[in-house]
Amino acid sequence: MRGSDEEERKRWRFHGNRPEIGEASASTLRGVYNRVMDSMNKEDPRPVIQLGQGDPSAFSCFRTDPSVESAIVGALESGQAVAEYLNSGLPYKLSPDDVYLTVGCTQAIEVAITALACRPGANILLPRPGYPDYESAAAQRHVEVRHYDLQPEKGWAVDLKSLGDLADGNTVAIAVINPGNPCGNVFGYEQLKGIAEVARKLGVLVIADEVYEQLTFGGEKRPFVPMGVFGSIVPVLTLGSLSKRWVVPGWRLGWIAVTDPNAVLRDFGMVDTIKDCINICADPATLIQGAVPQILEKTDRHFYSNINKLLKRAADLCYDRFQDIPGLTCPTRADGAMSLMVKLNLSEFARIEDDIDFCLKLSEEELVILIPGTAVGLKSWVRVTFAIDPWALGIGLDRIKAFCQRHASKYNAISRLSLYPQLNGIA
Amino acid sequence: MRGSDEEERKRWRFHGNRPEIGEASASTLRGVYNRVMDSMNKEDPRPVIQLGQGDPSAFSCFRTDPSVESAIVGALESGQAVAEYLNSGLPYKLSPDDVYLTVGCTQAIEVAITALACRPGANILLPRPGYPDYESAAAQRHVEVRHYDLQPEKGWAVDLKSLGDLADGNTVAIAVINPGNPCGNVFGYEQLKGIAEVARKLGVLVIADEVYEQLTFGGEKRPFVPMGVFGSIVPVLTLGSLSKRWVVPGWRLGWIAVTDPNAVLRDFGMVDTIKDCINICADPATLIQGAVPQILEKTDRHFYSNINKLLKRAADLCYDRFQDIPGLTCPTRADGAMSLMVKLNLSEFARIEDDIDFCLKLSEEELVILIPGTAVGLKSWVRVTFAIDPWALGIGLDRIKAFCQRHASKYNAISRLSLYPQLNGIA
Ligand SMILES: Cc1ncc(COP(=O)(O)O)c(C=O)c1O
Ligand SMILES: Cc1ncc(COP(=O)(O)O)c(C=O)c1O
Repeated sequence: MRGSDEEERKRWRFHGNRPEIGEASASTLRGVYNRVMDSMNKEDPRPVIQLGQGDPSAFSCFRTDPSVESAIVGALESGQAVAEYLNSGLPYKLSPDDVYLTVGCTQAIEVAITALACRPGANILLPRPGYPDYESAAAQRHVEVRHYDLQPEKGWAVDLKSLGDLADGNTVAIAVINPGNPCGNVFGYEQLKGIAEVARKLGVLVIADEVYEQLTFGGEKRPFVPMGVFGSIVPVLTLGSLSKRWVVPGWRLGWIAVTDPNAVLRDFGMVDTIKDCINICADPATLIQGAVPQILEKTDRHFYSNINKLLKRAADLCYDRFQDIPGLTCPTRADGAMSLMVKLNLSEFARIEDDIDFCLKLSEEELVILIPGTAVGLKSWVRVTFAIDPWALGIGLDRIKAFCQRHASKYNAISRLSLYPQLNGIA
Repeated sequence: MRGSDEEERKRWRFHGNRPEIGEASASTLRGVYNRVMDSMNKEDPRPVIQLGQGDPSAFSCFRTDPSVESAIVGALESGQAVAEYLNSGLPYKLSPDDVYLTVGCTQAIEVAITALACRPGANILLPRPGYPDYESAAAQRHVEVRHYDLQPEKGWAVDLKSLGDLADGNTVAIAVINPGNPCGNVFGYEQLKGIAEVARKLGVLVIADEVYEQLTFGGEKRPFVPMGVFGSIVPVLTLGSLSKRWVVPGWRLGWIAVTDPNAVLRDFGMVDTIKDCINICADPATLIQGAVPQILEKTDRHFYSNINKLLKRAADLCYDRFQDIPGLTCPTRADGAMSLMVKLNLSEFARIEDDIDFCLKLSEEELVILIPGTAVGLKSWVRVTFAIDPWALGIGLDRIKAFCQRHASKYNAISRLSLYPQLNGIA
């Protein structure tokens, strides 16, 4: 550990090595198997004879088809490929050992929260609105959740003072989703650095959910900055996956990268705990692991820029059209990711109780599916995912407008009429 | 529910609908999303506009490459394909709705145990030796484990009387692994029926782990019988995967099939609970889901028979060679699956403490990897996985023999000499 040891030890509040995880891992076949494997004499030049694990696919005589072979060879290189991919944005180098492959970013979230749950009574700070998998992962592991608000009137920025005030002695992590789901915001360098500094002051780590990494289209003023850039201020677990940028959510291939140049997470047992967690969960499909170097290194740049162009067009279409729909307010353009939040001015509607009711009725009457804000932490808002065919998006926006006009409250209709006295005859 | 309702209700001890699972499921995005989807007017002929979920891969304009397209189309058919595949061995018909796809059989085990954990204080009966994922899944969910012994001297058969005696009022399930890991045994029709009847008498369901389904090579006297055949005696959760029979463990594609012609599991809320569990876990890769119909329907029969021939040759080689290795006893040939158990006669070895010590030393000295029996529930035995290249298997057996000869105890060497007085000069 660099810096004054004693001081560093006092600084950080998380710690790994929860005995149950270690035990669960040691008592699994994989745990015992690892011990037996470790006791081999590395100097012995003979081939290892593997009668311990049941993976006949490693032997050509048992193989279904030749493509499996190349996939398995490739699997060894996938951690390396992810490390190299992430390194292009970092001021220091990750090694393949810093990368743990997971079953999508979903499992990366589960593993990160499990590791944090090592500290009994731990709490974590999550963004509101956010991505509810964090809340459920925390609830299942008895980790308390405290929400910090993203501020709609400030482009969904975080108020650093309130962020710090939320924490107490049991806080172990701040999670940041950037580019943001559900708000479509992209945090700038200063904002991220500010969060890193708050985390350092609190002695907590940062979980950086960068599943929408590089999916930004706000132009030069809003580039994507990886949180790992601030790894020397605060240790960061960077979560990512192939799901979004490469548009293969079904492949279920994600990762946790330990972006921690000062090895704080290693020294506090977090890395071992993450390893244990990874050992006791299901692995991502080897077939797909094998495709990782290919997809990370060989994807045409044109593919990326094309996706971002499509997303920008869709995001702008939403923003522009929502300005013109009665009862809805869309405060900011989306600069990244695949969704944005729209506020319901409920008083302007008749017989719409809340955001859930709005979405149920919209679904019933117009076959348009939106997510009620309540499901992502923000009542009276709705989440709109715009990563769909532009043709379908246009139709969806037309139907939302028709729905909102039809449900506008009488009061509102009347007040509109009184503004336009020439229409009075129709009322 | 068929039969006398009142009587049936009293019979079964498991029950589903654990509120936390339902709540966790309802509060996930997927839960809310399902509600919004359900409220659509099914009569409305217009296309649905999906602004609720972020899967742009459904739209051709966002797609990475054309293969993703066909994979997604195929995914819808994979449950159907599994149902049809299983139906060929059953006296009634499963529908695609009875099949839940999982991330390998590993996740199927997790889901089944989670559903059983609905009953606080529940216990389950597991085979010993067995597959330790069951033990860890149960420990993590606070389900008590009680072991029933497989009897080596009876071809690893189950003693039905002892099985029944193990249970009490909190027992909710019996798990059966057939064909067996680690013993390589294959249960006959009568044995399985006997287990089904014990389960019925106890009012518990059967978890039938049939991950090695059809991997049998004991000839006509030992065919594979699916536990689901006895579905009208007792409800069965049949667990399976592509991993073993198709030798693609890395694909992580498994299933839970509800083989329950009398709909007991549905009526007791177990099916809903399984659905909820499936909703809150990661899904298997869509790319691979799409390949399921292909692999189940189109795999050449020759591939299956070839694998079974290879496995039989390997299993017989092990059995025959182990008869001739000092200090080891292999009581029965394997008739199925990919491993068998070999007993260590520890008194015949010098300075080998136990099965773990045996495996660590064997690894160190001979680079041969075996699993200590302790890891699968049977001390003083070792598990040998024979699903490897025959050439490597031969070398492995040679090295095991050399190791055992070298470690034979003096006493044993002397006693052998006294049996063969003509060798006395060498001592
Ligand atoms: C913020 C965020 N994190 C994680 C995930 C899960 O990603 P994956 O599909 O790779 O599991 C999503 C998916 O929508 C997400 O929006
Ligand atoms: C008895 C048994 N059940 C389940 C599994 C897990 O299967 P999968 O690889 O499909 O997760 C195995 C794997 O070895 C097994 O032996």
